[in-house]
Amino acid sequence: MARLPDRVSITEVGLRDGLQIEKRILPTDEKLALARALIDAGHTSLELTSFVSPARVPQLADAAELFSALRRNEGVELKALVPNVRGAERAIAAQADVLVFVLSASDAHGRRNLNRTPHESLNELHEVAATAAAARIRVDVSLSVAFGCPFEGDVAVDTVIDLASRIQGLGIQRISFCDTTGMATPRQVRALAEALGDRLPEVDPAFHFHNTRGLGLVGVLVALQEGIVRFESSVGGLGGCPFAPNAAGNVCTEDMVHMLHEMGIETGLDLAGLMKAAQLAERLVGHTLDGQVMKAGPRLHLHGRGEQQ
Amino acid sequence: MARLPDRVSITEVGLRDGLQIEKRILPTDEKLALARALIDAGHTSLELTSFVSPARVPQLADAAELFSALRRNEGVELKALVPNVRGAERAIAAQADVLVFVLSASDAHGRRNLNRTPHESLNELHEVAATAAAARIRVDVSLSVAFGCPFEGDVAVDTVIDLASRIQGLGIQRISFCDTTGMATPRQVRALAEALGDRLPEVDPAFHFHNTRGLGLVGVLVALQEGIVRFESSVGGLGGCPFAPNAAGNVCTEDMVHMLHEMGIETGLDLAGLMKAAQLAERLVGHTLDGQVMKAGPRLHLHGRGEQQ
Repeated sequence: MARLPDRVSITEVGLRDGLQIEKRILPTDEKLALARALIDAGHTSLELTSFVSPARVPQLADAAELFSALRRNEGVELKALVPNVRGAERAIAAQADVLVFVLSASDAHGRRNLNRTPHESLNELHEVAATAAAARIRVDVSLSVAFGCPFEGDVAVDTVIDLASRIQGLGIQRISFCDTTGMATPRQVRALAEALGDRLPEVDPAFHFHNTRGLGLVGVLVALQEGIVRFESSVGGLGGCPFAPNAAGNVCTEDMVHMLHEMGIETGLDLAGLMKAAQLAERLVGHTLDGQVMKAGPRLHLHGRGEQQ
Repeated sequence: MARLPDRVSITEVGLRDGLQIEKRILPTDEKLALARALIDAGHTSLELTSFVSPARVPQLADAAELFSALRRNEGVELKALVPNVRGAERAIAAQADVLVFVLSASDAHGRRNLNRTPHESLNELHEVAATAAAARIRVDVSLSVAFGCPFEGDVAVDTVIDLASRIQGLGIQRISFCDTTGMATPRQVRALAEALGDRLPEVDPAFHFHNTRGLGLVGVLVALQEGIVRFESSVGGLGGCPFAPNAAGNVCTEDMVHMLHEMGIETGLDLAGLMKAAQLAERLVGHTLDGQVMKAGPRLHLHGRGEQQ
């Protein structure tokens, strides 16, 4: 597999994308313990929380406290999701390292989740970018439903590329292409990665998959084969799908890292430390998580010959 | 993805590899209902059961009854796993269409699971092949731990190729390379597929993955890219790993079929029918299965815009 990268970078999104669907509201000190376990495992980029309305997502109501407690970790980039200018202002006040503005690739999902069409979100992003620039803080973008919308179905690659181009036009290079409800297929991953390389070579893409239909790591593999080197994932596979109560959530960080290391691709992360963090996450949310390596161990975790089989 | 095949064939192994780890012993009529649901969904190849010692695997003690009840399905190949000559004789008496002789690729796993080294198994296979030839019944081989052994660790591609060559030397073309405890990585899958193509072009390989470490469908994808066109999988992801109580089992048939169809690869199977069979399997075993598409639906199963998210 000669074309594969030697190294990829991973942003951990479990504390935000993972926890926001959990029923149990975790106290701030439990989130801090999980964040520290992730940093101990080598993470240098965490999407820590979201500055959304606390009434809408009570799980993330302690966003400012989290930043306040963690912001002295040198070499660790703490990212804050922001849905609008108000959220950006709160995140800047909380001294977030990076703002992540979220924007849907489909009208229906945008209206439903953000109360805005993609076009309206671009206008809001213009203001967010100006606000962040004044504070000298970087803005990245997370583009939701970039591989399919649960309301509209397929989202054309041209639509995604057009939005990404407009986002880049606002001076933003780092865009995460998010498979919000696990609709990405190998064909789509390849098509989007190729289109990005051909048409928007200055965009620095991250791919963000969900395992809703079992294809999360398949998406990662195809993306790697197409030269994508930045990924977002969630410890233990924290997360879920709002439409399918028992469905899997985000791609599991330690399962992905296990795969990458076995492919000879460096991540800078320590698998044993990630497994500890995943086990902590499982205790904190109070139910079994979807991660597999946390249950089975790495592939060369061997068994005694007399062990019951 | 120009090199991908247009069509693959799938042998359903849930009734054997899946059920053998289940605690609840299913009555024969429930197994028949599941087998019929699988046939209704388009399956033409089922690994139906195993003629092992009923004392050792009580779940499969009704092997002869299953064959007796199902053997009049025209166009459906019913396969019986056999560990030795005695099992082959029983399977032949039960009118199995195909015998599947199982052989481990590692000494430790062979001794532990079959009470035989691979070399000793080859001697047994010689007798099984003669017995089957006299009855004009085909023998295939399942090669266990072909991508790694839970006791010994890595199994060299050369070891696997050497065994496959000896198996082929007994007149057997169809060999399943089984990742018994989910140790296959993309590199290994590629290496074995390439070695088979280069060194044993007359072997007709099937690849059989487990999702123990989340890499089951990744293995399928890499195998497809290397020209493998036969796979074995398990409805609903039935199965498990004897070493990890909560770990996932075999690659899930309907998740794999969902992926294949979305890649434009034909299987001859009906996804809706497979999902029905998976739901039946889940009711029969009495616990949640690992299949994802059975929970989330196919990717273009769209949701109403007013639905709670």
